[in-house]
Amino acid sequence: MLGRLNHIAIAVPDLAAASATYRNTLGTRPTAPQVLPEHGVTVVFIDVGNTKIELLEPLGADSPIAAFLAKNPSGGMHHVCYEVANIIAARDHLKSEGARILGDGEPKIGAHGKPVLFLHPKDFNGTLIELEQE
Amino acid sequence: MLGRLNHIAIAVPDLAAASATYRNTLGTRPTAPQVLPEHGVTVVFIDVGNTKIELLEPLGADSPIAAFLAKNPSGGMHHVCYEVANIIAARDHLKSEGARILGDGEPKIGAHGKPVLFLHPKDFNGTLIELEQE
Repeated sequence: MLGRLNHIAIAVPDLAAASATYRNTLGTRPTAPQVLPEHGVTVVFIDVGNTKIELLEPLGADSPIAAFLAKNPSGGMHHVCYEVANIIAARDHLKSEGARILGDGEPKIGAHGKPVLFLHPKDFNGTLIELEQE
Repeated sequence: MLGRLNHIAIAVPDLAAASATYRNTLGTRPTAPQVLPEHGVTVVFIDVGNTKIELLEPLGADSPIAAFLAKNPSGGMHHVCYEVANIIAARDHLKSEGARILGDGEPKIGAHGKPVLFLHPKDFNGTLIELEQE
C-alpha cells in the first residue's frame, strides 16, 4: 500500500535560519518560503533528488505544529509522507486493521493540492505518517 | 552537497511487532531481521520505491539507540541518512561551517559497508543526520 516517500517534514522555529543552514552548511537549494495560511505553516522545500525535505515554521495562533515546537523548541522531525494509489482504499484498509486516522477520518486537501490523511503516531511506533493521494 | 535520501531510520522497541505493522497494516514488504552486533542493532529494511525505511531494535548493552528508546519508549524517528559524493570533502566543509561531527570526526564503516558520519542534531534543528559515502 505505501508508495514512494513524498517528503520528510522537519519543524523549525526559525525558517530563515534553517534555510540558511541547509543552503550553506548542507549545500542544498531551498526554495523561497511559501506562506500557507490554510495549513498554519510557512514552508520551504528542498529537493534531494529522490524525495523532498520540507522545513515547516508555525504560522498563526492555531498552527498544527505549535505543540510540537513547544515540546521541541529547537525543532525536529515532525512527520513522513508516503504516496498511496487510492487514499480511500488505504484509509478503509487501515481502519479495518485497527489503525486510527486523525481528525474526522475524511481526506483533506494538503499543501500540494492533493487529498491527504494523517495516521495516529501511537499506532506506528511514535511516527506521524501522512498519506497523500498520488 | 547532500545527495539522495538513502533511508529514514525508525527506532522501535519490538522489531517483530513493528515489522508486522508495516507488513499488515501499511502493506509493505519488510525484510527478515539482520543482526548487526558491531552496530548494536537488529535491523529490518523496507523498500518504498525511491528510498528505504530502516526499523532499528537495540541489540546488546551498549546499543547506540538505547538512550533514544529510554526517552521514547514506543519508538520514533531516529535519524535520516543522505548520500554524499565525497565524505571527507563533506566533513571538511561541514567543519569549516562550524557544524559538529559526532565521535572522533573520522568516518566509520556503517551498516551498508560504506563510510558514514553522524552530525550533531543541535546544529540541524534537532535532526540527527547521517552521511554515507555514495
